[in-house]
Amino acid sequence: MFNKIAIFGVGLIGGSFALALKKAHAVKQIVGVGRTAAALERARELGILDAIGTSVAEAVMGADLVLIAAPVAQTGAILAAIEPHLQPGTVVTDAGSTKADVVAAARHALGAKIGQFVPGHPIAGRELNGPDAAIDHLYVGKKVVLAPLPENTPQDIARVAQAWILCGAIIHELTPEKHDCVFAAVSHLPHLLAYALVDDIAKKPHADLLFQYAASGFRDFTRIAGSSPEMWRDISLANQAALLYELDAYMLQLSRLRGWLAEGDGSAIEAVYANAQHARQNWLRAIETAESQKNIQGGD
Amino acid sequence: MFNKIAIFGVGLIGGSFALALKKAHAVKQIVGVGRTAAALERARELGILDAIGTSVAEAVMGADLVLIAAPVAQTGAILAAIEPHLQPGTVVTDAGSTKADVVAAARHALGAKIGQFVPGHPIAGRELNGPDAAIDHLYVGKKVVLAPLPENTPQDIARVAQAWILCGAIIHELTPEKHDCVFAAVSHLPHLLAYALVDDIAKKPHADLLFQYAASGFRDFTRIAGSSPEMWRDISLANQAALLYELDAYMLQLSRLRGWLAEGDGSAIEAVYANAQHARQNWLRAIETAESQKNIQGGD
Repeated sequence: MFNKIAIFGVGLIGGSFALALKKAHAVKQIVGVGRTAAALERARELGILDAIGTSVAEAVMGADLVLIAAPVAQTGAILAAIEPHLQPGTVVTDAGSTKADVVAAARHALGAKIGQFVPGHPIAGRELNGPDAAIDHLYVGKKVVLAPLPENTPQDIARVAQAWILCGAIIHELTPEKHDCVFAAVSHLPHLLAYALVDDIAKKPHADLLFQYAASGFRDFTRIAGSSPEMWRDISLANQAALLYELDAYMLQLSRLRGWLAEGDGSAIEAVYANAQHARQNWLRAIETAESQKNIQGGD
Repeated sequence: MFNKIAIFGVGLIGGSFALALKKAHAVKQIVGVGRTAAALERARELGILDAIGTSVAEAVMGADLVLIAAPVAQTGAILAAIEPHLQPGTVVTDAGSTKADVVAAARHALGAKIGQFVPGHPIAGRELNGPDAAIDHLYVGKKVVLAPLPENTPQDIARVAQAWILCGAIIHELTPEKHDCVFAAVSHLPHLLAYALVDDIAKKPHADLLFQYAASGFRDFTRIAGSSPEMWRDISLANQAALLYELDAYMLQLSRLRGWLAEGDGSAIEAVYANAQHARQNWLRAIETAESQKNIQGGD
């Protein structure tokens, strides 16, 4: 049970966290802080917030837990604003899609209080943003990756984990570096590739004709290109090194395929396509198995 | 009303065509021809076929319409087998995903009878294959692109269009060359890109860890990599020139993005992401508008 939770950034991610904890009757008071008064007022209307913080000091005062769910580029500034008011007994976590840069910003901003910051990343989302998009079941059955620091106490890590478990999530742990490498490959690169394709097509002189014949395969392939450009610009830059590494590997893969296509080497092309189909089928099967076991073990 | 339709290749595409025409009471007899006796027998059990052709000659004899719905690489061989038995009054069409190569193969196989071949491409599909995947409403509201030849009579083009309209489809016309350029960009390239990404990840030493954190964005981005590798190898090779052209444009786009990412040029990256998001939103809105107008006009 939490007495007071402060949330910086009350949109889809922060708002859904609040709604899930309220549904679980796990928190007495949730205070919100954000850039725009209208969004905070809306969050209070929707029952996400009990109160709007009038200052960072007041919001953080007496909080068991602080969640930073703002765009990742703002994490450092928010932590710097929190630091002077951060009392012993308060744990701070975040929901950023990258971790190494957040850890670096946190060390800079929090200094000797770095042990009170437990980095986190919930693997959940919707295409909608803002407090109106928040739902109480966003995290049910979803992974939350914690990337604890050597300075964190087991108690503080457990407190953050407990909050997410109360939201219905499953806790995983990765180092910040490993986290960023993994998500560069399976999330950040696909976003870049989808944005790149839609922009490429949209800039062609006959773009209207092309879009007219784009069908469901194209729609699904490019769904992630409907995400917030500002957010994904920040993620791309925040995870620059790992994303460049994955992009280079992918461009090498495309060069190989280009060569085989130019040579008409059907066997080599089919080998790539077949390996991909096979790997994807195995992946989907593994997900389904995990889902069914979760149900057997009494999850909902 | 059709007296007899012969279908070469009774899987998802050919089977759904048959079921839709039967549902519309638009055909007296459907005869199937295929590589495997078991699939044809299954199609008859499912009510897709009235009869299994014992020979190409018998299947084609007296048919108003012949549909070739086999893998695109087999179209030439099937047309060559049909040619000696092709009588005046029979129109042949196909369902191949590429058109310029099909037209070249048809000219070679049919010679002076080329006027009886009206190339076509239904823009519809499912992730399942074979006669069991066939459904009577696969084409409802979907586009069918016809790519008529100068040698086709308006009557023959109209007969093929009529069959697809009876299936619920909407007829579009493109030249074979234009067709291939359009689908290289909005379908064939995305397939290659999705296969390339999954294969790239699957071959990494820590592939298991990566797949463990792949989520819904990755699932949708790679859905088309679940498609038949054999079919997409054939399509890639059949549309080699247009696909190489689109792949080169895309690789250039990735090189530009790589440069901006390496330089940390957030504005340039955001401009691409924002343009893509905007273009995709416009495209989805245009689709929705078209859908709602179709409903107003009395479609189902």
